[in-house]
Amino acid sequence: MPRYRLDIEYDGVPYCGWQSQQGGCGVQDALERALAKLGETGRLICAGRTDAGVHALGQVAHLDFTHNRPAEIIQRALNAHLEQADERVAVLAVTPVPETFSARMSAKKRHYLYRVLNAPAPSALRKGRVWHLVRPLDIAAMQQGAHSLLGHHDFTTFRAASCQAKSPMRTLETFDIAVMDDEVHFTTSARSFLHHQVRSMVGTLVKIGRGQWPASAARAALEARDRTRCGPVAPAEGLYFTKVDYDS
Amino acid sequence: MPRYRLDIEYDGVPYCGWQSQQGGCGVQDALERALAKLGETGRLICAGRTDAGVHALGQVAHLDFTHNRPAEIIQRALNAHLEQADERVAVLAVTPVPETFSARMSAKKRHYLYRVLNAPAPSALRKGRVWHLVRPLDIAAMQQGAHSLLGHHDFTTFRAASCQAKSPMRTLETFDIAVMDDEVHFTTSARSFLHHQVRSMVGTLVKIGRGQWPASAARAALEARDRTRCGPVAPAEGLYFTKVDYDS
Repeated sequence: MPRYRLDIEYDGVPYCGWQSQQGGCGVQDALERALAKLGETGRLICAGRTDAGVHALGQVAHLDFTHNRPAEIIQRALNAHLEQADERVAVLAVTPVPETFSARMSAKKRHYLYRVLNAPAPSALRKGRVWHLVRPLDIAAMQQGAHSLLGHHDFTTFRAASCQAKSPMRTLETFDIAVMDDEVHFTTSARSFLHHQVRSMVGTLVKIGRGQWPASAARAALEARDRTRCGPVAPAEGLYFTKVDYDS
Repeated sequence: MPRYRLDIEYDGVPYCGWQSQQGGCGVQDALERALAKLGETGRLICAGRTDAGVHALGQVAHLDFTHNRPAEIIQRALNAHLEQADERVAVLAVTPVPETFSARMSAKKRHYLYRVLNAPAPSALRKGRVWHLVRPLDIAAMQQGAHSLLGHHDFTTFRAASCQAKSPMRTLETFDIAVMDDEVHFTTSARSFLHHQVRSMVGTLVKIGRGQWPASAARAALEARDRTRCGPVAPAEGLYFTKVDYDS
């Protein structure tokens, strides 16, 4: 049973999220249909389940294969089957890994990007790929707010009611905000995130960036440990799961 | 009858090209449906008709309006109607122009970008947005080939059989090739282009970049003035109409 690591990119728009669903609308379903054509019927384990509409540039999953095939052949076959099925999923790399490797349990750090298009007009080519906000955001105030969330905290405020994690304690390692042409990019990393944590934090910072809340509101919301103190959750379409770090 | 200039972005994938068609599948149709909701039923004149699947970042069109409205109101209303109809078209700017202005006739220079994804794996998020070529292209050879096409020539070799231009003579002003991360970008400008000229030139250069033809083949094909000497026409999905220059 050779184990393989799959690095995966997807456009979240046509999917109901990563996780397999009865109707087969999950990214996992699309990949497992392609794997089944290779005679592999196991279930993929991923580094982080993403919600409907959320994209991935570097999702990681693993699977124990029943057949021995070169990694490059597996990759090409999977991409050919995904292409034929008109899926919006691509396999960027296939790597043999020891059976101690788990895409989920071995992950040391997870990275996300949130893209806001901050411009008067919408973008046709970036529809479903960015959150469009017309009025200019106060970048410095948002940076101040983001900085105040760094470190080991109880993130109850920024956690979905549906979150199944045992503990609300998380360590936010980085949370940077940068202007890239007409976009504002929020990049953040942590060993793991709570459900809706990134979108909840971005939504709160956007309240600050719009001048509706002071920069200190982010820290105050965090310390309140109260979901009702969170800003509106930012829409899924701007969120990208970009990278997972593992020990080499 | 105030005349307005519209700057337009669109994703070419869901459309049968710029031009209005009976079924209403043209980008022009999408825009004219939105205009009709404002009581404007004239026909748009554009700077350059694009083919099915070709994108635009800076298409320009003009129309004589029957109602007097502030440009900003027109823009917002058009984008709202386009959004509601789930179109992949956005109006980036609306500007009042003198009635001597023609999006088509006043254009001094047209700019195109062609994007090749030159990487082993396909990209899910750039599906329909790039031409994916797996094997590394020889950039220097393609640059040499592109350079040999600059200037005033008979471009019969690079012209679609369906091209309706009276003359095959065109002046290619720029044709640059640059590597941008995992993409190769071909950028070119001219007062005007023949039908399929950019995609025909890119297809010919890719033959050179793949090592199937020498760099000198581009110039030889040009001088032959023979359509059968053209490389395979590059697919529409990689082409972007980026900008139109007018006298200020």
